[in-house]
Amino acid sequence: MMTCQNSRGDALLEALDALAQISDEPGCLTRLYLSPAHQRAARHVKSLMRAAGMQAEIDTVGNVVGRYSGSRDLPCLMLGSHIDTVRDAGKFDGSLGVLAAIAVVRELAAAKERLHHPIEIVAFGEEEGVRFPTNLLTSRSLAGRVRADEFEVRDENGISVREALAQFGGDADAFGLVARKHGDIAAYVELHIEQGPVLEAEGRALGIVTAINGAARLHVDVTGVAGHSGTVPMRLRQDALAAAAEMVLAVEREAKSQPDLVATVGVLDNNSGAVNVISGHVRFTIDIRHPDDAVRKASMRRIETALSSIAERRRVRQKMWVFSESRATAMDRRLIGELEKVLLGLGQSPQRLNSGAGHDAMALATLCPTAMLFVRCRGGISHNPLELISREDAELAVRVLLETVRRFDDAL
Amino acid sequence: MMTCQNSRGDALLEALDALAQISDEPGCLTRLYLSPAHQRAARHVKSLMRAAGMQAEIDTVGNVVGRYSGSRDLPCLMLGSHIDTVRDAGKFDGSLGVLAAIAVVRELAAAKERLHHPIEIVAFGEEEGVRFPTNLLTSRSLAGRVRADEFEVRDENGISVREALAQFGGDADAFGLVARKHGDIAAYVELHIEQGPVLEAEGRALGIVTAINGAARLHVDVTGVAGHSGTVPMRLRQDALAAAAEMVLAVEREAKSQPDLVATVGVLDNNSGAVNVISGHVRFTIDIRHPDDAVRKASMRRIETALSSIAERRRVRQKMWVFSESRATAMDRRLIGELEKVLLGLGQSPQRLNSGAGHDAMALATLCPTAMLFVRCRGGISHNPLELISREDAELAVRVLLETVRRFDDAL
Repeated sequence: MMTCQNSRGDALLEALDALAQISDEPGCLTRLYLSPAHQRAARHVKSLMRAAGMQAEIDTVGNVVGRYSGSRDLPCLMLGSHIDTVRDAGKFDGSLGVLAAIAVVRELAAAKERLHHPIEIVAFGEEEGVRFPTNLLTSRSLAGRVRADEFEVRDENGISVREALAQFGGDADAFGLVARKHGDIAAYVELHIEQGPVLEAEGRALGIVTAINGAARLHVDVTGVAGHSGTVPMRLRQDALAAAAEMVLAVEREAKSQPDLVATVGVLDNNSGAVNVISGHVRFTIDIRHPDDAVRKASMRRIETALSSIAERRRVRQKMWVFSESRATAMDRRLIGELEKVLLGLGQSPQRLNSGAGHDAMALATLCPTAMLFVRCRGGISHNPLELISREDAELAVRVLLETVRRFDDAL
Repeated sequence: MMTCQNSRGDALLEALDALAQISDEPGCLTRLYLSPAHQRAARHVKSLMRAAGMQAEIDTVGNVVGRYSGSRDLPCLMLGSHIDTVRDAGKFDGSLGVLAAIAVVRELAAAKERLHHPIEIVAFGEEEGVRFPTNLLTSRSLAGRVRADEFEVRDENGISVREALAQFGGDADAFGLVARKHGDIAAYVELHIEQGPVLEAEGRALGIVTAINGAARLHVDVTGVAGHSGTVPMRLRQDALAAAAEMVLAVEREAKSQPDLVATVGVLDNNSGAVNVISGHVRFTIDIRHPDDAVRKASMRRIETALSSIAERRRVRQKMWVFSESRATAMDRRLIGELEKVLLGLGQSPQRLNSGAGHDAMALATLCPTAMLFVRCRGGISHNPLELISREDAELAVRVLLETVRRFDDAL
């Protein structure tokens, strides 16, 4: 029994290793949307789908779509994730969900099991937004939530998505063909590496996502008065950096005061600084996320109030503005309940958590009931070659996904 | 009487304007040690000294030295400051002390007044340390506190002080000729623009320096754990930037708790930062100054303790090290007393203050009783073309220096 259990994990890790060999850069994994490596990876995944007993094609926007027919004419159960990566990526982010889904269908096909519902697996082409200034372009295309002009944006070499798609064998003009309608998809379930440390800290292999956090990014500009570090007494200073330091802590304090809120000052720019100069100008960013948009917005207001009061007390000027904002996406309650039953059935505690990062599931959730299952991530490290999941967790992930699929006809 | 009073101020401001025309860069004042502009300025100052009734020469390290004989064979009373500047400088820093001293001797000579003590005026060549990595090279040469190898350092074009001196008409091998011995100088008095906001804040035209602050510069290295801003909950973070922010405030708090202490975080480097990344590594500098070295060192120890405890609590690593340190220089008590009497005699409150910046007086203080008089600086702005003193303050500065010189035979 142990051998059999671990063999699923082994097979999945081997499949992940093989897919990770397909890269645009030697010696590391970089697979950008519509690049030569993406093309090779898409063909590789299509072959895997066919070998697992599915029909499979690459669609007009570069997604690989496989279909395992059902015994009845019903909307499909869709599984999937993405196969593009960041630069110098880990091999689990995205690929794990695609390859685990293929493993599930291969096991059903080998046992000649067929659901009433057809099963579709999609390997989305553009989730990371690295090559082009895009945002979930391919999953939003499938969800019918994309505009024609989004295919006109260009990469750093001046190549547009439209041009790259033509080169790839796709067709920007035909993006409408990949759009599904309401009712076409009974549910979408995405397995993904957590990319954070929560499950590891809680001692859980898997977690059920309750919501993908809404997020805002802000710039803060602090202007004080530059001065000589030796000649200006403390009481006469209007030090922009000391003010910014107090603001950084105010952001942190607000985040700590609200369950599930995360807020980060990731960039603090004191470029004009010199060791013997009191800072006259500092810029910093705030990244703030929460599963409930109302909670996040209330925190943003409190942060603005706190920053204004720090600026006033320290006699510096402060300007704060939002430069990017996205709403939270709740996962489907019935699907969450089903995943919990499956986990309990396999002797696992059904840990719930939020997703701090964005996922293709955000696009699908606009069209159909959607759920996500996270797999424990060693050290919380992601977007990094050191990204890792254990063989045991890989094994369990495939089993949970398989059981979820098997229960689907009856459950929903 | 008013006309007469303001005429001293007008004359001094005109002399400052004329000297400020001598620059290495068109449109702004930049006069680096041993540059063509420094050569022209030295010759100009030598002419002014001679026109004021002094003998004057340029010495082997590039100082202009003028002498107004005394009626007895006594050690000299030395006045002076520097005529090199930073890049894009103001016209008062250094030049004010040289030109005010010349104005004083010119007035004595015009009235055929002669002290028992000879008066010497020195226009030092290198105080700013901008062209070469040097530190008060020319005033330390005069104080006999310089080493031969200090003339071998090079500017950014690879030219050594030795080579530049030869070009200038000086001689690095003859640096020993400019050294004075103990007993040669009865006292050194330097008038200088404050370069800080204290006198303006106190509503005083002039201030008497009690000590030139000792100073230390430190680097602090903070290493946390980088992470995804969306996926790592607040309680699991080891955010190097948030830790550094708390440390910046701890430095500030210590400085505010000690009278006369100034401590500044001037550089904070979060280069590897991104809006959606929790900072893994931050470096910052501390510049800390106080007139009493023991007080400064005790504060440095308390800062180190505070930073260690912040690092420990936040589970980040912290390393702190001193990369530059200079001792405090006390000014001569009797000279301070004399300056106070002169100020009181002219109806001025004798404001005392420390010097946060370094000055040639630090070098002279190793050889003879030394004092400094600061002139109010508009907005505390210095090392900047906006540097300014008022005509009235210029007038008063010359009067105070003149009275100090006149009292010198009797006072000391």
